[in-house]
Amino acid sequence: MLLVPDLNEHSKTPYYIQLYDYLAKAILGGTLQSGTRLPSIRRLAALCGISATPVELAYQQLLAEGFIASKPRSGYYILPVRREGSPAAGERPSPAPRPITPRDPRHYTYDFHMSRNDFSLFPHKIWRSLYQEQLANPDLLQYGDPQGEPALRASIAAHLRQFRGLRCTEKQIVIGGDQYTLCSLVCLLLKGRMSGLGIEDPGYHLLPAAFRRSGYEIKPIPLEEDGLQLDKLYSSGADAVYISPSHQYPRGMTMPISKRLALLEWARSTGGYIIEDDYDGEFRYHGRPIPALQGLAESSPVIYMCSFAQSVTPALCIHYMVLPEELLPDYHSLRSELYLEHSASRLHQIALHYFMERGHFEKHLRRMRLLYQRKHDLLLRSIRQHFGAAAVLSGTDAGFHLLLSFKPPAAEAGTRVSNRASISTSAKELAAVAEAEGIRVTPMSYTWWAKPEYDEPEFILGFGGIAEDLIDEGIRRLAGAWLG
Amino acid sequence: MLLVPDLNEHSKTPYYIQLYDYLAKAILGGTLQSGTRLPSIRRLAALCGISATPVELAYQQLLAEGFIASKPRSGYYILPVRREGSPAAGERPSPAPRPITPRDPRHYTYDFHMSRNDFSLFPHKIWRSLYQEQLANPDLLQYGDPQGEPALRASIAAHLRQFRGLRCTEKQIVIGGDQYTLCSLVCLLLKGRMSGLGIEDPGYHLLPAAFRRSGYEIKPIPLEEDGLQLDKLYSSGADAVYISPSHQYPRGMTMPISKRLALLEWARSTGGYIIEDDYDGEFRYHGRPIPALQGLAESSPVIYMCSFAQSVTPALCIHYMVLPEELLPDYHSLRSELYLEHSASRLHQIALHYFMERGHFEKHLRRMRLLYQRKHDLLLRSIRQHFGAAAVLSGTDAGFHLLLSFKPPAAEAGTRVSNRASISTSAKELAAVAEAEGIRVTPMSYTWWAKPEYDEPEFILGFGGIAEDLIDEGIRRLAGAWLG
Repeated sequence: MLLVPDLNEHSKTPYYIQLYDYLAKAILGGTLQSGTRLPSIRRLAALCGISATPVELAYQQLLAEGFIASKPRSGYYILPVRREGSPAAGERPSPAPRPITPRDPRHYTYDFHMSRNDFSLFPHKIWRSLYQEQLANPDLLQYGDPQGEPALRASIAAHLRQFRGLRCTEKQIVIGGDQYTLCSLVCLLLKGRMSGLGIEDPGYHLLPAAFRRSGYEIKPIPLEEDGLQLDKLYSSGADAVYISPSHQYPRGMTMPISKRLALLEWARSTGGYIIEDDYDGEFRYHGRPIPALQGLAESSPVIYMCSFAQSVTPALCIHYMVLPEELLPDYHSLRSELYLEHSASRLHQIALHYFMERGHFEKHLRRMRLLYQRKHDLLLRSIRQHFGAAAVLSGTDAGFHLLLSFKPPAAEAGTRVSNRASISTSAKELAAVAEAEGIRVTPMSYTWWAKPEYDEPEFILGFGGIAEDLIDEGIRRLAGAWLG
Repeated sequence: MLLVPDLNEHSKTPYYIQLYDYLAKAILGGTLQSGTRLPSIRRLAALCGISATPVELAYQQLLAEGFIASKPRSGYYILPVRREGSPAAGERPSPAPRPITPRDPRHYTYDFHMSRNDFSLFPHKIWRSLYQEQLANPDLLQYGDPQGEPALRASIAAHLRQFRGLRCTEKQIVIGGDQYTLCSLVCLLLKGRMSGLGIEDPGYHLLPAAFRRSGYEIKPIPLEEDGLQLDKLYSSGADAVYISPSHQYPRGMTMPISKRLALLEWARSTGGYIIEDDYDGEFRYHGRPIPALQGLAESSPVIYMCSFAQSVTPALCIHYMVLPEELLPDYHSLRSELYLEHSASRLHQIALHYFMERGHFEKHLRRMRLLYQRKHDLLLRSIRQHFGAAAVLSGTDAGFHLLLSFKPPAAEAGTRVSNRASISTSAKELAAVAEAEGIRVTPMSYTWWAKPEYDEPEFILGFGGIAEDLIDEGIRRLAGAWLG
């Protein structure tokens, strides 16, 4: 057997790895056939002109990986590795790291996207120091409570009781790294308890999409002026409903108390569940926040979902839900059945706990509310000024967006809209016209579950992300682009 | 109508909230009936002896929440809110925050738990400075790429190609906050492509449990000395298989190259998938790490799963998987269908990217390997010294645990084991005996999917978490407790 690998003494790769690579490749490639005896360690070392140690290390590695076997007092033999028709193991790709692909999102001078936030008030110093404080605690580096840190759960429960009117304890709170993870748990928890989920249409689709994927039937329920059409829900056959009562997404109405109580009564009498999405419930600009539906009754059959994405930053990846007490035993079974681990960083969880406990969160919320209120009011004024009667606004006074229905002046309508296939095309085209001017607005059509045949030119205008001093100019240009 | 709320001028609660609370309670409680007209703002202000502003604010809030309606030129009227039999809205619970419930895990002086790690080498300073660096970038506080930060994905792909032998690019990598989240995505991705999942028995159950919950059939496949019994897999009807080839959990064997290639061939010829769990693949103590199965073929039908939980810390909540290229289009559809958001903190993701790019990760891995190697070797020596022939070890030389089969000496066996119902009871009781001495060892029985009728007294001994200077004493005491 002629086998003298050409070792490179100037390479950074040690001899034993060069040898291992050479032999493994020869075995996988079929050059070294099964049953072949390898030269003894001493002999191969002599042939290569190196010491015995690297050869021994290479053989040990081949042995560990099952390329060769050792027969006592006989030596090392190649094992059968390739089968007829088994896949060829080609060259390994070069280990040189690829250049990092930078994300290159489209740039908008006037970005009215609804899921962008303003972080000019983010408390960098406080957060940095809270994070450092946690980093010094080696216990926090171990695995934590899959349900979320008890300390943070207690802080969240206290906050919800005090500021959102919930009736809950930390035992009912489950923390997760994103909304999907929590939704997928809810899908599992409600299995066998329900089969049809009523949803607001238009609405937000993350949770319904997860439910549909889990085999639930989705029943889109139309809205009326003050929210869900209850009679349509009752007759839909749904046995659970997903709503955003504080500030409906995207229409922005607040569900009145009578409807809330009627929904609770419906859930009670049918054994159904209400999933309450309160993502922007902390943000109301003229008046106090609307208390959550969950708190309107003892032991209400409500799964309440919220997060710190809007109130602090999505970069923390801390979302949570409040489960009804009756679901807790099943949650605990599920947790052990699925071997769940914590999905939100413990360092962030405990830093956030102290952020809340030491009063920073409340203060931050107050400052954010004032900032967003200024932007909200400015956006409203600008639209009224530059659009006049051509724009109808809804869903104002809360959250991070409003809804703009664009009505081109009558004279314009004939020339501008009539030659288009449908009004829905028009909404897309109007967004494209805006984009050409560096302005991002989002047609609300994507929030329809059951897409209507004709789609009004309605747009979601977020005011969270855009800088205050760009709002008026952005709207002035938008009106100019659309009204000509 | 006699309605003079007793406002408390010394309360911290502003008048308008006191008024709102009073009126909302009166409406919910039925004291103020539907249709009742409220006093005018000016009149109620005069009755209460306060200015008009707080009354107006209270009315605005009641209006927004749907408790009352305003009729032009007439005043404010109570709306119908209570229905027959609708749930009573009782007192809101006290807003006083509850005391934080401290977690009180059992304390073990000698903790051989397999999922505890050693963080004495955690690079606090470097991590702190990397985190601060990211915190200063306001862009990172916005929502990020749901698949994971492209920069981190590129660093991971480069690392995997260089050190784990994978063939992959950053496009195939998906980052998640925990393993369950990634598993639930895999369950959705493979829907319709497979129905039965073969698993190693004994093995690790997180992924199989998620698959079972998603409606897949789980086919436990027994192990032989070098891993999965392939003939049993082939005849099981499984069309996907979940394995840990680098270091089987919990038995610790390495799957030889012939079996790896045979599995790839099986997957190719049946259109099946291999899910490779490589959670401890970086940690091998005598020889180089075993390259991953994924890299043995071009475009291999392997879903590779790993995380930074063991190599850095579980507190970051950064897990990842490498998808076969053929699944990427479906992953992208799923991502938009489910409105997925990033589930691992962007601050941690980018900090980790620089940790890798600047060479800290490699250096940290080397130091961790040396540390764990010392502990591993020490544990091995201690067991051999204190147990002698009473212990048989397996699964050594890698990972964070080894398997100890306890064989009480023949003389003892009669008195110690014979009066117990089964050997399985004995394993539990031996663990209890250890616990009484402050020692935690875990019976390996929990790793059986199909529990055998008689369970050998085998134990998983983790060496990651226990301090080096406690290992020998812990094992000496364990031997003392068990051998008498």
